[in-house]
Amino acid sequence: MPELRKDPILGQWVIIARERRKRPYDFVIKEEKTKGGFCPLCPGNEHTTPPEVLAYGRPAYSPDGPGWTLRVVPNKFPALVIEGDLNKEGEGIYDKMNGIGAHEVIIETPRHDETISMMSHDQLIQLFWAYRDRMVDLGNDSRFRYIMVFKNFGQAAGASLEHSHSQLIALPIVPYRIQEEIKSSLRYFEYKERCVFCDIIHQEKVQNLRIVCENNDFITICPFAPRAPFEMWVMPKRHQSSYVSMGDAEFHSLTDLFLETMKRLDRALPGVPYNYMLHTAPIRTPSLEYYHWHIEIMPKVTMIAGFEWGTGFYINPTPPEESAEFMRDIVLD
Amino acid sequence: MPELRKDPILGQWVIIARERRKRPYDFVIKEEKTKGGFCPLCPGNEHTTPPEVLAYGRPAYSPDGPGWTLRVVPNKFPALVIEGDLNKEGEGIYDKMNGIGAHEVIIETPRHDETISMMSHDQLIQLFWAYRDRMVDLGNDSRFRYIMVFKNFGQAAGASLEHSHSQLIALPIVPYRIQEEIKSSLRYFEYKERCVFCDIIHQEKVQNLRIVCENNDFITICPFAPRAPFEMWVMPKRHQSSYVSMGDAEFHSLTDLFLETMKRLDRALPGVPYNYMLHTAPIRTPSLEYYHWHIEIMPKVTMIAGFEWGTGFYINPTPPEESAEFMRDIVLD
Repeated sequence: MPELRKDPILGQWVIIARERRKRPYDFVIKEEKTKGGFCPLCPGNEHTTPPEVLAYGRPAYSPDGPGWTLRVVPNKFPALVIEGDLNKEGEGIYDKMNGIGAHEVIIETPRHDETISMMSHDQLIQLFWAYRDRMVDLGNDSRFRYIMVFKNFGQAAGASLEHSHSQLIALPIVPYRIQEEIKSSLRYFEYKERCVFCDIIHQEKVQNLRIVCENNDFITICPFAPRAPFEMWVMPKRHQSSYVSMGDAEFHSLTDLFLETMKRLDRALPGVPYNYMLHTAPIRTPSLEYYHWHIEIMPKVTMIAGFEWGTGFYINPTPPEESAEFMRDIVLD
Repeated sequence: MPELRKDPILGQWVIIARERRKRPYDFVIKEEKTKGGFCPLCPGNEHTTPPEVLAYGRPAYSPDGPGWTLRVVPNKFPALVIEGDLNKEGEGIYDKMNGIGAHEVIIETPRHDETISMMSHDQLIQLFWAYRDRMVDLGNDSRFRYIMVFKNFGQAAGASLEHSHSQLIALPIVPYRIQEEIKSSLRYFEYKERCVFCDIIHQEKVQNLRIVCENNDFITICPFAPRAPFEMWVMPKRHQSSYVSMGDAEFHSLTDLFLETMKRLDRALPGVPYNYMLHTAPIRTPSLEYYHWHIEIMPKVTMIAGFEWGTGFYINPTPPEESAEFMRDIVLD
């Protein structure tokens, strides 16, 4: 079983993922990544994944068969496992707990080569619905405190499979970065009685320097203090703390703007590896006045090096005003 | 001039490094890294670097000439610049300051191909003295609050030059990660009246599971909650909050143990890219009971992906007990 261990100095948790276990010697023999070849996520190979937990596009009475348009399966090499009770224990001054959680793979499309920027509105909106459906379902499990949805695209961004997919990890704790984000947003709210994200949207509209694109309900900006070139945040304009509170019309709006954002990214930097992360309020929290859900997109064009590791401080060679202008000026057909 | 910008939510600063400026289009045309070819750090090319600030091994009256055994020069493409006064200002809800600081390159050896694990004791001890000399000198500049010494080795770890070198950045603020480390260590001290790092060393000696190597004065361990496989910390056994407090004998001991550690790493994973970072107390602070300087070594064998970006939470496929055993069992000649 995987194990969660707490850094005794910073209090940050790490997952020692025994199920994904690499013995030290595995790093000596470099892994060969096979491009092409067998794909466990392609239609026809459904039996090679763990049994699905959700599928769209075909009758529910034929699980793990073909005909689906989107499919969600447990990760075959999970960072956390779903069976068991949560056990917290000490080891001298150290703290650990067993790695209870869920780790799922959202297979975004049956077409092996279809990336997000190539998708139709109908295909992409299914993905956003699937995020919601899985969050609602896993939110019923009282052992979990947070669900992080994310996507790794391209080998340099950590993707080990080519076929377009997202992932989701349900965690027994609210992770450090989200905790800090919530704490800081609350501090801002206590001082100003306004949501800091709403204030950011307001200022971005006034300054009009870092907006990439927008529609009625959503806006994509390059943030003022980005960790890397082309970092982008997609935010709902109306205050909303949780992704799962979105209504039907907002799903359509989000799909439109996200698709436009990803098309701009793909035209600007063809095939660039990227990560995106859905930041939303912890599960089973009521609507929060001070927190605002959003998606952070991090194209992978620079590297984390010693300075960033040591300081937690990023050196970014490209001002966000230039990144935003470059993205904004892309002509979409 | 570079600019420091504060993330309005997390309060973390980033450096928008205009001097290292990459226009968005620069990312479209992939940089070609030339292996071999002209090296600005090699003897004979001293005139191609900014004028040196320190050199060992040759008379001081012939700066920027040949004959040196170690040389320190300002970075030609600095993330921060040394001239100017510190200006803090707001931009609506955002905060920024101009990028005042120092960014130096420590050329560790005149021999282009000599990596740390190949160095003699005499060569490596010079490097540790150079870190100290530069920290003491820059510590006299009242605009600076922190000096981070770090090394990027190998392209995948962010090194843009092959020739063995470290770097140093003097900052006008204490960076986030160091602040957190100090705050957390203080909290532990207030509760236990002991240094958390001293307690870690004690427990590691008792458990004897994660020690890589040690001598009288220093110990190398794989930490209990490592962010990645083979992460190692080199720590003085005697409590000491600042690197610059070390005495002559300790410099020799550190050199011995660090050399052994790097040889083990190189034998275990030949040529593996890595970063290391020197964590020490902020400049001009008196000796602290609760903080303990150390060097963190991060071999680059895994990747930061969406989950880590989103949560600040690392997934590590290799328990530190296994990493330590693997390193410990390497036979050195």
